[in-house]
Amino acid sequence: MLSKTAEYALRAVVCLASFPGESFSGEILAEKTQVPRSYLHRVLQDLVQGGLVHSRPGPGGGYEFSRVADQVTILDVVNAVHPLERIRQCPLGLPDHVTLCPLHQELDRAYAATETAFREVKLSDMIGVPGASVPLCDVSPRDIPPSDASVSK
Amino acid sequence: MLSKTAEYALRAVVCLASFPGESFSGEILAEKTQVPRSYLHRVLQDLVQGGLVHSRPGPGGGYEFSRVADQVTILDVVNAVHPLERIRQCPLGLPDHVTLCPLHQELDRAYAATETAFREVKLSDMIGVPGASVPLCDVSPRDIPPSDASVSK
Repeated sequence: MLSKTAEYALRAVVCLASFPGESFSGEILAEKTQVPRSYLHRVLQDLVQGGLVHSRPGPGGGYEFSRVADQVTILDVVNAVHPLERIRQCPLGLPDHVTLCPLHQELDRAYAATETAFREVKLSDMIGVPGASVPLCDVSPRDIPPSDASVSK
Repeated sequence: MLSKTAEYALRAVVCLASFPGESFSGEILAEKTQVPRSYLHRVLQDLVQGGLVHSRPGPGGGYEFSRVADQVTILDVVNAVHPLERIRQCPLGLPDHVTLCPLHQELDRAYAATETAFREVKLSDMIGVPGASVPLCDVSPRDIPPSDASVSK
């Protein structure tokens, strides 16, 4: 139900937030998140614009998580690239639907519940969970030496 | 967050279920639901296929709700045209992610909550609610005489 853009953004941010202080090239990030390179580039631009990711050009640069993992929620990431829609007024523009009809009330109630669920989960809740697999990685973070992970864009 | 196809299907089914025993032409249904005619045609085909709508050709025919409103949920309608996705296995196909990583666990938890919310709302809960506006209609059902509403496809 999440847009592909939002899912890709979450992959990228969770991946970067798993390695605080490390930069990744777009190429490596695309490989790790399995997102098409050109698609990921657009997503990263929105994440940079939204202040979640820092982009550093040149050797040793790349993309880096620019926030603190326990202060960023799933909702923050989703809203940076493809904001969750809510139904504020009749989508059909019907003149006497000054309040939502029961159908759109119910749909919006489900959207609100999703919004709340995403607001309650911080990135730090998903990183370094004991016994859980590492998001988006088939190896442990400690298996990737910084010299391999940090490359220029 | 719901796909456009699912939203359009809900509009069509709620509209038809509001007039049990009445048939509507595709043209009138497209007008009432404000869904492009060709798009609605494809959605209606899926709804017929899913057993929610009956299609009767010829004069006096049209599309008609074929179930009972208190036995059909939002989820039934959504799943007939664009099933809600759940995350059953790692979307990246990572070999050591035999269980979902925390990111995909959280996303799936939100999807499950939406699924539950949609399963709990019957069409009858949205039709004829006292004091509420009629879904998708800017006039009350009683203002549309059957002779105007029932037309052939």
